[in-house]
Amino acid sequence: MGLIYKRRANYYETDQMGIVHHSNYIRYFEEARLAFMRENNCDVKELEQKGVIIPNVDAYARYHVPTRFDEVLDIEVRLTSFNGAKMEYTYTARNQNGDIAATGHTLHCFVNSDFRPVSLRRADPGFYQRLSALLEPEE
Amino acid sequence: MGLIYKRRANYYETDQMGIVHHSNYIRYFEEARLAFMRENNCDVKELEQKGVIIPNVDAYARYHVPTRFDEVLDIEVRLTSFNGAKMEYTYTARNQNGDIAATGHTLHCFVNSDFRPVSLRRADPGFYQRLSALLEPEE
Amino acid sequence: MGLIYKRRANYYETDQMGIVHHSNYIRYFEEARLAFMRENNCDVKELEQKGVIIPNVDAYARYHVPTRFDEVLDIEVRLTSFNGAKMEYTYTARNQNGDIAATGHTLHCFVNSDFRPVSLRRADPGFYQRLSALLEPEE
Amino acid sequence: MGLIYKRRANYYETDQMGIVHHSNYIRYFEEARLAFMRENNCDVKELEQKGVIIPNVDAYARYHVPTRFDEVLDIEVRLTSFNGAKMEYTYTARNQNGDIAATGHTLHCFVNSDFRPVSLRRADPGFYQRLSALLEPEE
Repeated sequence: MGLIYKRRANYYETDQMGIVHHSNYIRYFEEARLAFMRENNCDVKELEQKGVIIPNVDAYARYHVPTRFDEVLDIEVRLTSFNGAKMEYTYTARNQNGDIAATGHTLHCFVNSDFRPVSLRRADPGFYQRLSALLEPEE
Repeated sequence: MGLIYKRRANYYETDQMGIVHHSNYIRYFEEARLAFMRENNCDVKELEQKGVIIPNVDAYARYHVPTRFDEVLDIEVRLTSFNGAKMEYTYTARNQNGDIAATGHTLHCFVNSDFRPVSLRRADPGFYQRLSALLEPEE
Repeated sequence: MGLIYKRRANYYETDQMGIVHHSNYIRYFEEARLAFMRENNCDVKELEQKGVIIPNVDAYARYHVPTRFDEVLDIEVRLTSFNGAKMEYTYTARNQNGDIAATGHTLHCFVNSDFRPVSLRRADPGFYQRLSALLEPEE
Repeated sequence: MGLIYKRRANYYETDQMGIVHHSNYIRYFEEARLAFMRENNCDVKELEQKGVIIPNVDAYARYHVPTRFDEVLDIEVRLTSFNGAKMEYTYTARNQNGDIAATGHTLHCFVNSDFRPVSLRRADPGFYQRLSALLEPEE
């Protein structure tokens, strides 16, 4: 059910260790997550127009093999939990050697513009249904 | 009339050349400009609450001496043009040796949330007055 | 001779005005420039392995129409000046309506790891030749 | 033993939700950590000159209360684990109301320029000693 999001490492994302700065993986994860949602007809922009925003509750990344400038990562993203109030994604970024560069997960909640919790099931039943269908089966 | 804004270069702002990535100076300029406005009782937050935002019209930076991680820059910012519709700032960033690291300028306009031009003189006369008083004298 | 580099605006690149922060265009320009060089067999990574790096001398961006999250820009990049010591690029970013979102230019020099000028013609004649062939004709 | 690092939220760090983008806290944590090390005579720059770099092994942030543009955070950083091969830091960021904005932790290892593990005890005994002295007592 997941998506593989391809992402080339930019020069400005490297640091003086000569590798992609660790903070950028959190941004790569966001790109992968939003690509996954967009591709699956769960458009965050539409939801925001209805007054629902999706801040992060947490974010975690573990770094395995450094990524160099110009390397292309395959970032696999999967929806591993969703109940209408929160959703969780897990990520695995592999370089072109097939090595795992980074793994991670992020948790998100649905809130209104005052950052009060919103039930997505009530706020947008169609979105809720479409997103539910993307949930990974329990292993 | 200007302000000297002190700014230490962060590790995540370096790139694999071992120097601060050039895009970050545009951000340093913004920090200096907003510090200058805040210190002089021209608070951008208040203006935004009144529905006036201040996007960039342009931005320019020239790079002289590279900045390394942990170096502290003295960024001098001055308001060099203001007429109620647009404002221009110029910047000079010096390192602790007194060398010029970068210079630049930015131009800004005042618009409403639809990005339509706003006359600051009408939208907020007090802000207009306070900002006018900060304008550098013609040389 | 130029290249059109496609780039989707990321969520983390927006600011509280709801548009792509102006500093990010400087980064988009870099992405476009490095894609142009890579596609044309002028690989910056190889040059860096030979001890030649290419810092910015300056950077300029002018902002026309704001870019929103998820919009895709067509960024046209062209090599407008090159003499073995410096190179200049110009950029035009258009959104999917065909409107110009931003224009700009950047100037770069070739230096060694001590940031001393290097003649690319001597340091890497092949690179020099290949890059020369990409220069836009005088208008 | 910890340090309180003060950090004002920059405009360019906000996103279109009107709050500091979650990825930036990972950068704030880095700033706080490096300030802590610098203040305590454990200078990362010196260590890098000796060929020892300190990449992240992981990074975690939990977001409690959103941070707005121009808010000042007090970021408390503490060294919670260190054995010469790895070090772990924990972070608590509070806003000026005393509310916790974010918490987190990061794990780091010491490697050479080939990203091979280095024993800090052997590579720089003085640094090892000084850093050991900063370790939080077991609770």
